[in-house]
Amino acid sequence: MSDHEDPEVPQRMTIVAWSGDLDKMWPTLILGSTGAAYGMQTTIFFTFWGLFPLVRDDVRITGTNTMTKALAAMNRPGMGHMKLSKLNMAGAGPWMMKKLATEQKVSSPAELIEMCRELDVNLWPCEMTMELLGLRREQLVEGVGEPVGAATALSEMSKSQVNLFI
Amino acid sequence: MSDHEDPEVPQRMTIVAWSGDLDKMWPTLILGSTGAAYGMQTTIFFTFWGLFPLVRDDVRITGTNTMTKALAAMNRPGMGHMKLSKLNMAGAGPWMMKKLATEQKVSSPAELIEMCRELDVNLWPCEMTMELLGLRREQLVEGVGEPVGAATALSEMSKSQVNLFI
Amino acid sequence: MSDHEDPEVPQRMTIVAWSGDLDKMWPTLILGSTGAAYGMQTTIFFTFWGLFPLVRDDVRITGTNTMTKALAAMNRPGMGHMKLSKLNMAGAGPWMMKKLATEQKVSSPAELIEMCRELDVNLWPCEMTMELLGLRREQLVEGVGEPVGAATALSEMSKSQVNLFI
Repeated sequence: MSDHEDPEVPQRMTIVAWSGDLDKMWPTLILGSTGAAYGMQTTIFFTFWGLFPLVRDDVRITGTNTMTKALAAMNRPGMGHMKLSKLNMAGAGPWMMKKLATEQKVSSPAELIEMCRELDVNLWPCEMTMELLGLRREQLVEGVGEPVGAATALSEMSKSQVNLFI
Repeated sequence: MSDHEDPEVPQRMTIVAWSGDLDKMWPTLILGSTGAAYGMQTTIFFTFWGLFPLVRDDVRITGTNTMTKALAAMNRPGMGHMKLSKLNMAGAGPWMMKKLATEQKVSSPAELIEMCRELDVNLWPCEMTMELLGLRREQLVEGVGEPVGAATALSEMSKSQVNLFI
Repeated sequence: MSDHEDPEVPQRMTIVAWSGDLDKMWPTLILGSTGAAYGMQTTIFFTFWGLFPLVRDDVRITGTNTMTKALAAMNRPGMGHMKLSKLNMAGAGPWMMKKLATEQKVSSPAELIEMCRELDVNLWPCEMTMELLGLRREQLVEGVGEPVGAATALSEMSKSQVNLFI
């Protein structure tokens, strides 16, 4: 693509990944990995529902008390269990989307996050969300950075030319 | 408005229109056309659900195979068939909103997109989404540009002072 | 936090608060108050559903005609009546979230908006939305600024380094 030689390519992009829905995680990871592939220093700050997909698929229930455990039971964490924000149809929607994506050779979220890791995208979990939802560091997928707070995320945004809340 | 003379008005704005909901398409098109009217070089990148409203209203079913056709059947494309993200109430919500908007002389999405076209807003359909959903160029409304990829959209964002994911 | 001394901290941030959901109002107000606490000149532009939480909790029904009154009846305004965008479970979800937040000493939305006011965050209601929904200035909580239009919001965004649509 001709953009490659663009001398105006910015140094940094920060994406706030607030939603844990499959149809929002896709643009988050596609924009993140594409930006990094074109030389942008990219950070994704995973917060609120956006933190659930970062939980390892083999972790069934997260949480430290009745309420956070109930929350995880109702909103199953893990990259493999994401839902669509609409047309979810008890899982038929995500299945269709993933099948269409495979046919069209669009990478899966798990592949995209692997790509992000290889391209040195910063994957920052939100500290406050981890405490709120009772998530522990060892329950998250590999390659995720230290939990950070809103101030650190804002500081990164303030140095980024492209900031998106997804 | 006093903003008109503002010498600091930026050169560019890029909006990622991800949602096809009526209540999100409105701010997308209002911000896009207002920015363009004040001299900003404005680009709207229509991706994922956001691409459906760009389908011509007379195209009933899009898609190239059973699954993409089924998707279009469940999520009817076209500017005239947008739903509200909440309080949709089987179409009563959008009807109310459109009626309120008409009473208050707020332009309809169809009028706003016409305004965007006249103000030379770039209307870019997302190439990957078109392939994913089996949408063809001739099914989209007039005035829409060539399909572009994430890299081109990111390049435009990197030159824009205002970037929004809606 | 070490960010405090960062000389690159930007001058301005503008957040478009479009959603009135509890789980989106939280990041809006946390980012807004955190930014202001670190010296950013922060503006929150409340538009569409995002305007409902700014209505005083003692105002039961807003609106100037049958339709806008019906809308307020279905989507009860006020900071104390926000819903979750998912897992709302007829109010059990918001109750759980608020309880978890209290346990983890996360400030409530009402406390956060008070904090924003004390930190001189601009709280701008969208003029067009107020007219559309039949909201009157005296129905909004204290400390809210004059209603402004999209052009004024865009002008502020054009001067901001961090712009988010939430």
